[in-house]
Amino acid sequence: MNVELLSGERLDDLQCKGYHIIQDPKRFCFGMDAVLLSGYTNVKEGDRVLDLGTGTGIIPILLEAKTKGTFFTGLEVQTESVDMAKRSVLLNQLQDKVSIVEGNIKDIKHIFSAQSFEVVTSNPPYMNSNHGIINSETPKAIARHEILCNLEDVVSAASYCLKVGGRFYMVHRPHRLVEIFATCTKFKLEPKRIRMIQPYIGKEPNMVLIECIKGAKSMITVEPPLIVYEDKNIYTKELLEIYGYHSDPK
Amino acid sequence: MNVELLSGERLDDLQCKGYHIIQDPKRFCFGMDAVLLSGYTNVKEGDRVLDLGTGTGIIPILLEAKTKGTFFTGLEVQTESVDMAKRSVLLNQLQDKVSIVEGNIKDIKHIFSAQSFEVVTSNPPYMNSNHGIINSETPKAIARHEILCNLEDVVSAASYCLKVGGRFYMVHRPHRLVEIFATCTKFKLEPKRIRMIQPYIGKEPNMVLIECIKGAKSMITVEPPLIVYEDKNIYTKELLEIYGYHSDPK
Repeated sequence: MNVELLSGERLDDLQCKGYHIIQDPKRFCFGMDAVLLSGYTNVKEGDRVLDLGTGTGIIPILLEAKTKGTFFTGLEVQTESVDMAKRSVLLNQLQDKVSIVEGNIKDIKHIFSAQSFEVVTSNPPYMNSNHGIINSETPKAIARHEILCNLEDVVSAASYCLKVGGRFYMVHRPHRLVEIFATCTKFKLEPKRIRMIQPYIGKEPNMVLIECIKGAKSMITVEPPLIVYEDKNIYTKELLEIYGYHSDPK
Repeated sequence: MNVELLSGERLDDLQCKGYHIIQDPKRFCFGMDAVLLSGYTNVKEGDRVLDLGTGTGIIPILLEAKTKGTFFTGLEVQTESVDMAKRSVLLNQLQDKVSIVEGNIKDIKHIFSAQSFEVVTSNPPYMNSNHGIINSETPKAIARHEILCNLEDVVSAASYCLKVGGRFYMVHRPHRLVEIFATCTKFKLEPKRIRMIQPYIGKEPNMVLIECIKGAKSMITVEPPLIVYEDKNIYTKELLEIYGYHSDPK
């Protein structure tokens, strides 16, 4: 399918089922966190999946590629990102499986029905300090800083949308772990599994993957960390498997 | 100094400043968790240190050996353990630096003044289920299961005893991490640093070390995990250093 690219946009090969994604480097390009989140997310056959703050739609598109979920929805507030994501859906001919919805996470109750998803994902803005942002209206600032929504907005929206027993997956920064646990449990999303991402063995983690289950009892599995690099510029085998898994057939 | 050993007791060399400790294998012997906790605890010159549920007094005795703290107090509820710990203090001629107090953590407000310590440590019972305990009155059951005190009792007692800015150190099980964070923050002990202990690289952690600071802001450092074994029966260099550190001069 031919889909128009606007000025500044580029087409990136996802190395996965022939899928491509439209990105604009001036706006925001997906990173390793999105790929790791999609690898960590457990979508079962028949699941309906919602991604909060989907940006270019990378998470729903990757999850469509690698899971047997029934339907994948991405909610995004920035009009230009919504437009790009919708064109990526068309480009990959996923309009029967993936839907991009324009809207604000804070208005979630006017957009989706309560308890209408089995899985919710989010790769939210990590930074709760807006200190030092020169222009807080740029897409990059909005993706990185809690300008349009904060952690509590994301978690409460996820809880609203999930069925009891449904699963919430998030990637975030380890230094906010205490706040993340408190916010999730406040909204009945019990953290059940975490995995730290370390750039190298013996180095502090710089990302954390979290699985919560709505309404579950308190008891968490801390998994051994995922190490990204074996050596400078050399990925570990496990990281390559997570990336490579995308090209496996369903 | 000659100190009497009772029937069933033995004298163990702490490999540290010539110190020994009296233990009774039928009751409870200290484990790696106590040694790791003492290695994780940051005691500064002049600090007054309290260990909650001190058992044989292993933590105050190790901390006296390896730090410049002013005074070390251990609180213990079981009379036989108090007696053993007191004899270990005498044996090592530490009566001017270490005091063992008999009492219940739940009665903390009748035993110590509020905000009278710079550092509190605890290696509390890990298990909140008493399911399957045949005899809940044995010293081993009391040390392992929350029979005489639970996590909230320990944390609230620690918070009561600590000055604002004081530090609380605990070793516990990772599967209770969510509850640990919630309980600590409830009592104004903000988790500031955690370290997972993994038996081997790539294996799930089975212990976690936690540092909280009373009254601090929310922001935690997740340290890279400590690996115990390099290979079967072969400790890692870092673990050996933590054990070996005890024999260093102050």
